[in-house]
Amino acid sequence: MQVLVYGAGQLAQMMYLDGAALGIDVQAVDVSNNTVVHPVSKQPLDCSLEQAIERADVLTVEFEHVPEALLETAEQSGKLHPNKDAILVGADRVREKALLERLNIPNCAHRIVTDLTQLDECVEALGERLIIKASRDGYDGYGQWRLSQKADLPALKKQLEGLDLVRVPLVVEQMLKFDREVSLIGARNVSGDIKVYPLAENLHYQGQLHVSVAPATNSDDALTAKALEIFSKLVEGMDYVGVLAVELFQCGDTLLVNELAPRVHNSGHWTQAGADTSQFENHLRAVLDLPLGDTTNIGGDAAVSAMVNIIGCDDHDLALLGLPGVHFNWYGKTVRNKRKMGHINVTASGYKALGSKLEQLSGYLSADHFPELVDEAARLQK
Amino acid sequence: MQVLVYGAGQLAQMMYLDGAALGIDVQAVDVSNNTVVHPVSKQPLDCSLEQAIERADVLTVEFEHVPEALLETAEQSGKLHPNKDAILVGADRVREKALLERLNIPNCAHRIVTDLTQLDECVEALGERLIIKASRDGYDGYGQWRLSQKADLPALKKQLEGLDLVRVPLVVEQMLKFDREVSLIGARNVSGDIKVYPLAENLHYQGQLHVSVAPATNSDDALTAKALEIFSKLVEGMDYVGVLAVELFQCGDTLLVNELAPRVHNSGHWTQAGADTSQFENHLRAVLDLPLGDTTNIGGDAAVSAMVNIIGCDDHDLALLGLPGVHFNWYGKTVRNKRKMGHINVTASGYKALGSKLEQLSGYLSADHFPELVDEAARLQK
Repeated sequence: MQVLVYGAGQLAQMMYLDGAALGIDVQAVDVSNNTVVHPVSKQPLDCSLEQAIERADVLTVEFEHVPEALLETAEQSGKLHPNKDAILVGADRVREKALLERLNIPNCAHRIVTDLTQLDECVEALGERLIIKASRDGYDGYGQWRLSQKADLPALKKQLEGLDLVRVPLVVEQMLKFDREVSLIGARNVSGDIKVYPLAENLHYQGQLHVSVAPATNSDDALTAKALEIFSKLVEGMDYVGVLAVELFQCGDTLLVNELAPRVHNSGHWTQAGADTSQFENHLRAVLDLPLGDTTNIGGDAAVSAMVNIIGCDDHDLALLGLPGVHFNWYGKTVRNKRKMGHINVTASGYKALGSKLEQLSGYLSADHFPELVDEAARLQK
Repeated sequence: MQVLVYGAGQLAQMMYLDGAALGIDVQAVDVSNNTVVHPVSKQPLDCSLEQAIERADVLTVEFEHVPEALLETAEQSGKLHPNKDAILVGADRVREKALLERLNIPNCAHRIVTDLTQLDECVEALGERLIIKASRDGYDGYGQWRLSQKADLPALKKQLEGLDLVRVPLVVEQMLKFDREVSLIGARNVSGDIKVYPLAENLHYQGQLHVSVAPATNSDDALTAKALEIFSKLVEGMDYVGVLAVELFQCGDTLLVNELAPRVHNSGHWTQAGADTSQFENHLRAVLDLPLGDTTNIGGDAAVSAMVNIIGCDDHDLALLGLPGVHFNWYGKTVRNKRKMGHINVTASGYKALGSKLEQLSGYLSADHFPELVDEAARLQK
């Protein structure tokens, strides 16, 4: 069985590693130059993209920002999972919001803006505390902005002047007071079977995921059922095949969809050590229409996991390898500021034990690069 | 970090997969033609053996039958772990027996025979029920023979006539009545730290390992301590670095060493799914002098594992992937009679649950190729 992944980063690499154990050959496409490469060594393989598409049983993606022309060709082969529309939902906030509305899935109150004059209407409808996001990433000058009070609106408009909002509209959202961010990772295979992992609880710092804990603390059956209902609506509504990550804001008992990622996801890396079947293996199973693997935590009802991202540094003390239940993962990249270099999965029996292991782990890491870790370790031990 | 493995079979492949996750680059040497290959694809890499030796931080082996000249060159680089003498102990039963005697480690009563006339003395000393083994494998006409009664000795001698017993002596052992075969897999790193996995209990069929269960049933602390003592004596006596497998016969409370394998071992494959750190990862950690990883079963005191070999067939029903706790591993080889094609790891909480899972699993496998499985499943459920 051969799977061709668009994108040649760590997600393709981890798919390759889990696939190889099952006898599945995963190849990757470096979409910057359309070459087919080995997902670990990144060395070019001796075949063209056309040949690789021809040979593959399935095409899939490790990220949503694949150039649309490539996705179009992939879709035409009849082998692409998830489908092109589903991938584009993850790449375009306008499509994402339209999907959520169509499927009647709770999400943040918002407006789509294609002309700056519409911003007044947004303040009128959503209030004066707003988050403004470019609907698509990767365009110079486009990004995210915040409005804290109505009086700043003229200045904001000035800042946004000159953007082509017809080509790249803005999504304007009410700034939400939420309790926490959780994510639901799950898979649907070609046959339509669905399996989801326990909810993960995600801690961000300066816009990047730093720590995930799964199952999320204080998550009862009702919350889990709500998340599953959202997930099922989404995958069925999109005729989705593969692993899908749903980022959710929790406000009391309510779950609002923040963002969809049509792929394996950083907040699901804990599944490598903590779940019976990893998200990478289940993604491959899903797209190849194999039976999905068990998604529960390994080690019984009390078993819990954490994932700690290693971001922008490589100054960890490798003595951390000696800690029981600590699993080190390294992507083999050159250090750059804010770059995801690797992650550490930690498994334990119960949150207290997990917190204690994270506290121990923090002793081998520089506090500068792991600003959330000590507090999170303390929270879990309470 | 780069590790060069002599041998390019599934053991090197599994080292590669675990190494890649840690950022360790594993390359393999196909010793049939001295080319350096990718451990999974088996494709030649763009470097000579000399270059690969030069670049590697460590050289190691996936099997003991590496041509001695290659081992000699490897040893001269100063990077070979385990050392050449330790590897040769696994390849030569005369060296193995000499080591066991030197270290005063219990093993089967035996004699070394370099002349057929010595066989009479063997019967005299060891009795008339004997197993006769060529001291080294891979020579035409050499293998294993059995003597069941003294009257058959002349016929046996006739059969052995013409063998060059000075070049390849025979090891003659008393045929032992043992209760079962167990194995101890453990690792010692360059710094001398030692960690061992729980004892595995091994079921053979026609000379091949079919099922391992770990921890071995009915193994108390005293037995485990005995095995650890043997292991420690061996690795310290050989100044051994890496994973070592010790096959043992259990007779009542006594453990006798049957065979040593200076490498990761089939009876340790369960550690991939069942132990906190796999034998493959711990082998790499040991030879690179990293801290050894935890070797206990995942999931608490009741956690148990089994490994089922897939031998000479590929007619399994892939629906088995849907069974919780069942982990499929496939080596990507062409089917041949008696060839190890892959293995299935099964984890459970307690032996009864493990037996029940093995029983379920057997429904997806052909009874012809898994002759031990149903009985073993029944035994565990008792």
